[in-house]
Amino acid sequence: MILGPNKPFVEVCVSPDKYHLYREYNRIVVVIDVLRATSAICTAFDYGVERIIPVSAIEDALDYKSKGYIVAAERNGEVVAGFDRGNSPFGFMDEELAGQTVVLTTTNGTKTINIARDAGRIVIGSLLNLDVLCKWLIEQEENVLLLCSGWKDKENLEDTICAGAIAEQLLDSMKFQSIEDSTIMAKYLYLSAKENYLGFLKASSHRRRLQKLNMNADIKYCLTPNQSESIAIMEGDALVKLKVPQAKVKVKG
Amino acid sequence: MILGPNKPFVEVCVSPDKYHLYREYNRIVVVIDVLRATSAICTAFDYGVERIIPVSAIEDALDYKSKGYIVAAERNGEVVAGFDRGNSPFGFMDEELAGQTVVLTTTNGTKTINIARDAGRIVIGSLLNLDVLCKWLIEQEENVLLLCSGWKDKENLEDTICAGAIAEQLLDSMKFQSIEDSTIMAKYLYLSAKENYLGFLKASSHRRRLQKLNMNADIKYCLTPNQSESIAIMEGDALVKLKVPQAKVKVKG
Repeated sequence: MILGPNKPFVEVCVSPDKYHLYREYNRIVVVIDVLRATSAICTAFDYGVERIIPVSAIEDALDYKSKGYIVAAERNGEVVAGFDRGNSPFGFMDEELAGQTVVLTTTNGTKTINIARDAGRIVIGSLLNLDVLCKWLIEQEENVLLLCSGWKDKENLEDTICAGAIAEQLLDSMKFQSIEDSTIMAKYLYLSAKENYLGFLKASSHRRRLQKLNMNADIKYCLTPNQSESIAIMEGDALVKLKVPQAKVKVKG
Repeated sequence: MILGPNKPFVEVCVSPDKYHLYREYNRIVVVIDVLRATSAICTAFDYGVERIIPVSAIEDALDYKSKGYIVAAERNGEVVAGFDRGNSPFGFMDEELAGQTVVLTTTNGTKTINIARDAGRIVIGSLLNLDVLCKWLIEQEENVLLLCSGWKDKENLEDTICAGAIAEQLLDSMKFQSIEDSTIMAKYLYLSAKENYLGFLKASSHRRRLQKLNMNADIKYCLTPNQSESIAIMEGDALVKLKVPQAKVKVKG
């Protein structure tokens, strides 16, 4: 690793409760919740959703619902009673959602988005949009913090592996540097796992939790890289699809 | 991994601020601060120190000093002004310390010991006492939490690798099970690093920090496994050397 004064940093924060320790890298924050919030968000934009409003509390979600919004709500892996959708990506593979605004609340992912509200820019990362996201991040030439949602403030394997995969691509471009031990850890975890995500994650606590809920199709989909071309970015209170992922877009946050 | 109702758990907590999330495993807490507090503690007991009183605050250390105690104090890698020793293991290779009580305060390690005060038992882990500690832990047949000190609430490589090494030995014995993602992460990090700790840690932020302070000899010593036969255990307010590491000792905490 060559440390140079002119290269931006790419660093990994393994759980949202540690975000304050890594704020110096927050020009761009990539929020990662592989199983399943950020995978679902990428999928929703692939299917033409116009805006996604992430909210932390069920109460806020209910409030939006009473105003007529389409609202998706998940807690502990399940659709919350009274809502039509949770955070399964398959729930967003619905052409009726094209052009619509969706309100989303999940156990970890949407909370993490809201924790990072002071970031320069917030974008959504998953294995689904891995390559298109990395290409865009490399073009920005700004500090990048890869913020894992984890599971109730614990680290989890799938988010850390995804962060490691993004860090590896950015460092491989030779246009970024890294200094934090958490980044080295995520990178090595990704390198250990990359030949066989599913096999590696067999032992994961969150995967076991979802398996109990019969979500093997979701897990397989979310762990298969590069099925999405969508990069979602926060604009005000909502996520929108970045219109020109190939071009260099600079929005000062 | 076979989950069974009768096997105790061995789990890893990668930084002390997350201890509360892993309290269910705290029948035995192994506090790890490889560079350098827990390595220094093992060394001190090898050289015959009788008791080590870990204190969190410099003020408390000064108080003990005014009462005539031998006091070692480190902050940010350096000996605190007014004290004779920091946390270099070489500072404890001193036969004049035999039979003495030493008060110790360090940036991370002694704070971590004090955070875990509600544990059933607290013992001290490092690479120096790796095999003797694992042998003893396996004999206890109780839940074990490997608590990394990290660096100011961030994870660090050397403590996580050490925790991974201990977890690997305990899981290999087939007498323990593990369920947390943090444990899988530490184990894979250890497996990536085990052929060459020094090379692997080249990029570590804390190692760089210590290198600036010319502590290469300390680093090399602390990263060389199995140089110590000492297991230190908390009894009341002080660490003492476990007298019979081969025998089964059960102390209810």
